[in-house]
Amino acid sequence: MRKTCLRAGANSKFAKEVAEKVSSYIYDGIPTREILRLTLRILEKERPVVALRYDLKKAILDLGPSGFGFEEFIARILSEYGYKTKMPPPLEGACISHEVDIVAEKDGRRYMIECKYRNEPGVYIGIKDVLYTWARFLDLCEGFKLKRCLRLDHPWFICNTKFSRDAIQFACCKRVKLTGWRYPQGRGVSLEKLIERKGIYPITVLKEIDKGVRQKLIKANIILCRDLLKKNIKELKKITGMDTQKLKVCKSLITQIIE
Amino acid sequence: MRKTCLRAGANSKFAKEVAEKVSSYIYDGIPTREILRLTLRILEKERPVVALRYDLKKAILDLGPSGFGFEEFIARILSEYGYKTKMPPPLEGACISHEVDIVAEKDGRRYMIECKYRNEPGVYIGIKDVLYTWARFLDLCEGFKLKRCLRLDHPWFICNTKFSRDAIQFACCKRVKLTGWRYPQGRGVSLEKLIERKGIYPITVLKEIDKGVRQKLIKANIILCRDLLKKNIKELKKITGMDTQKLKVCKSLITQIIE
Repeated sequence: MRKTCLRAGANSKFAKEVAEKVSSYIYDGIPTREILRLTLRILEKERPVVALRYDLKKAILDLGPSGFGFEEFIARILSEYGYKTKMPPPLEGACISHEVDIVAEKDGRRYMIECKYRNEPGVYIGIKDVLYTWARFLDLCEGFKLKRCLRLDHPWFICNTKFSRDAIQFACCKRVKLTGWRYPQGRGVSLEKLIERKGIYPITVLKEIDKGVRQKLIKANIILCRDLLKKNIKELKKITGMDTQKLKVCKSLITQIIE
Repeated sequence: MRKTCLRAGANSKFAKEVAEKVSSYIYDGIPTREILRLTLRILEKERPVVALRYDLKKAILDLGPSGFGFEEFIARILSEYGYKTKMPPPLEGACISHEVDIVAEKDGRRYMIECKYRNEPGVYIGIKDVLYTWARFLDLCEGFKLKRCLRLDHPWFICNTKFSRDAIQFACCKRVKLTGWRYPQGRGVSLEKLIERKGIYPITVLKEIDKGVRQKLIKANIILCRDLLKKNIKELKKITGMDTQKLKVCKSLITQIIE
């Protein structure tokens, strides 16, 4: 928990303080969820900006429900890392045409990206998802040989949850790139690190913005906190219907989150 | 509807009568579900055995909920058609080991069978299921080349619902055998035809047997109506806890259904 606080931007003294406070509430067999809730409550009171970052996982879950927001969000993250991305029309494989979520290019390599957004926390991506992604990639490679679609170099599966062990094993074996929550560890870059390293926070971290307004923002292609900063208060009032004071609070919070 | 009645064993005169009776209740925009319900009500009153066969789809839906009963049921159907079937331990592919539902052999060909049981009516099997089945088959073929598992000749996907158009197109292209509800039509044999042609009715066609008893029967490997016939009343009383009279009614109904 201390590590997560640190990553969320708390200094080490404050992280220790929070950890101590939370410990005093902990009892044998306390659910992780409950620890998270306690930590958040303390953070919210004392350092609201750290709290917002701490709750990133929830914020990503809130991107749904249709999963539309998630694909858009992933495309934005990738472009921040220098990928040229597009959401292509169906691509012709050897057998059928496939709906590919994102095609991303960088350094001369082209990735076929399958995005999976899961609404419930704690769910694992199983082997079947990785198997079908690989099969789709193979059919599209055959489609390329038949000159029906563009060349694709790697399949890439990106999701907001973890992967099962056999999914990881299969993906390593067939070189399907996987990115998910806390995966890959070590040398690779997991989803939350991709976000945190460049401060690409989705607007859903802001609790001031309720569900209805959130949908309006996503529709207006305002998915990241930094997109919101680019608009002036007048424009935002028009899109969201929120009042000036609240919008000012949002903007100030964002400046602190991103910095 | 007349065709379904005929297939369920009604003679053509009776089928016509039922059709006429149902027509008199029909109004513009009546849901298919409602027509089915009306037909069933008439059949139940006048020819209970025809009604039981008519309601086969529902009976298969009732095989669940875990899908355990469905796999067992499919294995039984296949063995009635001369396949040697087994539910194997995990098979080693080139990358990972795979849980294969059924391996079936006939005329020197070996099939890797994926069973999918869907609980809700009207659901379609989409492209992803066929894609992952094909990918699994490919990995197992590579596993065979590495001498890790037995040779498999064809992937085969069997389910209790229909298939989406692209799932069918992909399966035809990659020669994944598909069997489902009303599929294949024409030269192929669909699931309900496999059942009807040999009278392999699941015990769930009997409304006299409630859910609790059904689970007990499936556990005792009594999945088909004909399995029930093989046991004497004393044995069945022990397994099901049902009384003699009710069991006799079941046996008599089954004799009429199967003949």
